[in-house]
Amino acid sequence: MSLSRIHNFSISLDGFATGEPQSLEAPFGHAGHRLHDWMFATRFWGAGGSEGLDNAFAERHSHSIGAEIMGANKFGPPGWQDDPDWTGWWGPNPPFHTPTFVLTHRPRSSMEMEGGTTFHFLDATPAEALATAREAAGGQDVRIGGGPTVVRDFLAAGLVDHMHLVQVPILLGRGVRVWDGLDSLEQTYDIESVSSPSGVTHLTFTRKLGS
Amino acid sequence: MSLSRIHNFSISLDGFATGEPQSLEAPFGHAGHRLHDWMFATRFWGAGGSEGLDNAFAERHSHSIGAEIMGANKFGPPGWQDDPDWTGWWGPNPPFHTPTFVLTHRPRSSMEMEGGTTFHFLDATPAEALATAREAAGGQDVRIGGGPTVVRDFLAAGLVDHMHLVQVPILLGRGVRVWDGLDSLEQTYDIESVSSPSGVTHLTFTRKLGS
Ligand SMILES: NC(=O)c1ccc[n+]([C@@H]2O[C@H](COP(=O)([O-])OP(=O)(O)OC[C@H]3O[C@@H](n4cnc5c(N)ncnc54)[C@H](OP(=O)(O)O)[C@@H]3O)[C@@H](O)[C@H]2O)c1
Ligand SMILES: NC(=O)c1ccc[n+]([C@@H]2O[C@H](COP(=O)([O-])OP(=O)(O)OC[C@H]3O[C@@H](n4cnc5c(N)ncnc54)[C@H](OP(=O)(O)O)[C@@H]3O)[C@@H](O)[C@H]2O)c1
Repeated sequence: MSLSRIHNFSISLDGFATGEPQSLEAPFGHAGHRLHDWMFATRFWGAGGSEGLDNAFAERHSHSIGAEIMGANKFGPPGWQDDPDWTGWWGPNPPFHTPTFVLTHRPRSSMEMEGGTTFHFLDATPAEALATAREAAGGQDVRIGGGPTVVRDFLAAGLVDHMHLVQVPILLGRGVRVWDGLDSLEQTYDIESVSSPSGVTHLTFTRKLGS
Repeated sequence: MSLSRIHNFSISLDGFATGEPQSLEAPFGHAGHRLHDWMFATRFWGAGGSEGLDNAFAERHSHSIGAEIMGANKFGPPGWQDDPDWTGWWGPNPPFHTPTFVLTHRPRSSMEMEGGTTFHFLDATPAEALATAREAAGGQDVRIGGGPTVVRDFLAAGLVDHMHLVQVPILLGRGVRVWDGLDSLEQTYDIESVSSPSGVTHLTFTRKLGS
């Protein structure tokens, strides 16, 4: 069965997955790179990185993934829809290596990149987007890549089978929070927490049987 | 030196330290007792309880404490100020066993209870309240007992030396959040996270030297 999975999704102690304002110069606003320093230090990210707990979680990101869904604000800074040459933050060879569906109210034509990534632009409900991505994933799983608005919408619609969050010990105070409107999630998911020697805490949400 | 400390302060994953509405029947609103189940299972709470990680943290609650400061909404349900017979939730022998200062805009006369607890009622700034409690603590530490409004106010005023939070894997969605307005707290505190086999995560904030 093809699952819907979230990986390496990093939040502050106060639940923000990005700071503000988002811009070309500062994709995560005042959060800078602090939400992802834990990941940059792993072998998953680069040679010489750590191979412990953080890396074990980080590496799951790409296993058995056949497609990704992301939000418009992960794909580019505010206003990217007005720039016909914008092809995402990631250069010619983006790290997705699968069909990648960008949810936006202003869709454009698909773009084939190097390394197996093709960006498709969809104006669709979360359920429709997941069905489309599943079809493209050829029997593999679909990653819900964020940002927080998209994560929240897919959780609220009951469309997430597994979620891995990484809680970073910083307080952002403002930005986009992942939690709003998700009370009682623990009734649908088994939640496990494990703190890492690096200082972050990994939270895994696994959908309960029958939920 | 007399420190200001917070212990066993329990929050949901989304940062709420109480649900809503608070009432005589449901002091924590829709949260019920879920924020404190981890503590009820420890030896600190009662015979036969666990003696592991959760208990080690829980027991620190009373060590070297000479006074407590709490908010009006921890002392009683909305409207308790209109009831001259209200003496708190805890019966004749409250679990504080020290002078205990209740911050309220409608102070009343002090009440001496059994077991060493005397309730004093203060309309004062956090700094003034801490000075008064310190004086009463006879050289020992002062516990900031909550609720979240009081914890937030004392943190914002820079009046907390040590804080122990317990993050419980539930999502409340509404209530009183402890985090609002506290960005960059990690610049003032060393933050350590340790997950417990019980499922909760203990977060300790220790003020950095010189902060
Ligand atoms: N912390 C992490 O691990 C992590 C992971 C990924 C991303 N991020 C960060 O999160 C931020 C972006 O998050 P965000 O919450 O602001 O936005 P987002 O979730 O990336 O995108 C939300 C936007 O996508 C479009 N959209 C969403 N659902 C749609 C639907 N069903 N149909 C059509 N369009 C839809 C809408 O944009 P339009 O109406 O403008 O088209 C919406 O405003 C960025 O800073 C990014 O770097 C963080
Ligand atoms: N999760 C935990 O571990 C934990 C721990 C303790 C309590 N709690 C729960 O938290 C809830 C109460 O929290 P809360 O945030 O609603 O309220 P709270 O922090 O207990 O009390 C806030 C109230 O105290 C009074 N007050 C605060 N500062 C004052 C000052 N400087 N001068 C005068 N009065 C002042 C004001 O009441 P008035 O203006 O009405 O006088 C204010 O509304 C309860 O449900 C309690 O059971 C949870």
